[in-house]
Amino acid sequence: MSDRKRIAIVGVGLIGGSLALQLNEKGLASRLIGVDSNRDHQKKALELGLVDEIMDLDEAINNSDVVILAIPVDALVKIMPHVLDKINNHVLIDMGSTKSELMSIANDHPKRGRYVATHPMWGTEYSGPQAAVHGAFENTAVIICNANESDEDALEWTKNMYKKIGMHLLEMDAVAHDLHAAYVSHISHITSFALANTVLEKEKEDDAIFELASAGFASTVRLAKSNPSMWVPIFMQNRENVLDVLNEHISQLRKFKSCLEKENYEYLQELIENANKIRRIIK
Amino acid sequence: MSDRKRIAIVGVGLIGGSLALQLNEKGLASRLIGVDSNRDHQKKALELGLVDEIMDLDEAINNSDVVILAIPVDALVKIMPHVLDKINNHVLIDMGSTKSELMSIANDHPKRGRYVATHPMWGTEYSGPQAAVHGAFENTAVIICNANESDEDALEWTKNMYKKIGMHLLEMDAVAHDLHAAYVSHISHITSFALANTVLEKEKEDDAIFELASAGFASTVRLAKSNPSMWVPIFMQNRENVLDVLNEHISQLRKFKSCLEKENYEYLQELIENANKIRRIIK
Repeated sequence: MSDRKRIAIVGVGLIGGSLALQLNEKGLASRLIGVDSNRDHQKKALELGLVDEIMDLDEAINNSDVVILAIPVDALVKIMPHVLDKINNHVLIDMGSTKSELMSIANDHPKRGRYVATHPMWGTEYSGPQAAVHGAFENTAVIICNANESDEDALEWTKNMYKKIGMHLLEMDAVAHDLHAAYVSHISHITSFALANTVLEKEKEDDAIFELASAGFASTVRLAKSNPSMWVPIFMQNRENVLDVLNEHISQLRKFKSCLEKENYEYLQELIENANKIRRIIK
Repeated sequence: MSDRKRIAIVGVGLIGGSLALQLNEKGLASRLIGVDSNRDHQKKALELGLVDEIMDLDEAINNSDVVILAIPVDALVKIMPHVLDKINNHVLIDMGSTKSELMSIANDHPKRGRYVATHPMWGTEYSGPQAAVHGAFENTAVIICNANESDEDALEWTKNMYKKIGMHLLEMDAVAHDLHAAYVSHISHITSFALANTVLEKEKEDDAIFELASAGFASTVRLAKSNPSMWVPIFMQNRENVLDVLNEHISQLRKFKSCLEKENYEYLQELIENANKIRRIIK
């Protein structure tokens, strides 16, 4: 018996499009339906062969067994109640970067069990269907939130899908997820945006500044290319955690500042040695 | 007629070792002599075939046509007067990340003309001879500082060497170099060290924090693995520029903080849109 399903992907951009490629390649879909509010994205997704056809949301739900939401988190909280109302025995999965607000919306719905809340820790700084890439998600973590609130069959199908595309599974409650995501994903984007603005500000008076840009600079500033329509809603929904981490980060930067001001190079050495401990984590 | 030279590389770590591999592969050296104060590095450099032999500094100068200094900038300013005293008709090149202090030392020396001050904008977060890699330096910029103070033949040989290993040349005075390097290299290291410390601090109370670490986080925190014995001296010598950029960076981060505190998401959107302009620069 095949476990291939009719799958509707809502949002055929970077995340939804890359997932579509994987679902195809791993033989998980008997039919792939794309839903997108942006007409250019609809066309592009068909052109690139990411999905077999485009439908509107309700029609896609009626013609699928699995509905996967891969849209910005502000759109996610808006359509979630409607999608929960419309589904029957579907598996419903979201791929959003924040979870607490979404959970509070889904929690009391009679269809809560059909829904599996997930966050694959994968992305690039690009967006739209043309940003979809083959081999996405492989060898990275996917977090499943509040798994015990999902029906067993929905949870199993979702876990199997993520395993088949090469991800390793973690389970966590939504509140812990949002805190952790602030530390290992959201703050990186803010530091990168702010670093870009720092250097772009200087460039106004000195247009040669980028001629020297090194690979190290490119690495730290890469995320600054990320799309604001994805990231503003993430920062809104995870505001308190992000603010906490940002305050801590600014106070860490102030330690470097103070070392330089006071010419305290022993402490500067210690700060850097401590930072080197990240070698344990990031290979 | 061959332009192969007897070349002494002082410091056979990441930079000196990677250069040695390139000089060999591009046929620029008739003989490669390594100098290193660290006995383990001496052995490792021979073992890895980075250099043909190890000598002490004075012996290496006596047996070479070209002397290349690839050591941390604090060691660089210390040995520079001695090396200038010892060389005859050599080409002397340094590869340091800061230039103003070094220039003030070399400027009045009778051998100033033999010296070419350079900064290849290449590196990785690793160090030592075992960190040397093939194909290093290719397709990145090298800055030559105060080129008009170098003898024409020394300058030509140096430019030719960097072109042969695939770098593109920029010329700049030392003061401008140090300012620019603070913006497109030195500050990236400070933000990365501080970000590592931010997250490592949190890990003390919550050891699951890194299970979610994404590729985006890895990218922004990669430089935090960099060696303090290289970076403390850079920050010391370029203290004022680094402090200026760090102050600007903290004030840029405060704008993000203020947006979140005041829930001013329109301005947050603007800040991110502005940061996106980095797309022009970083492909």
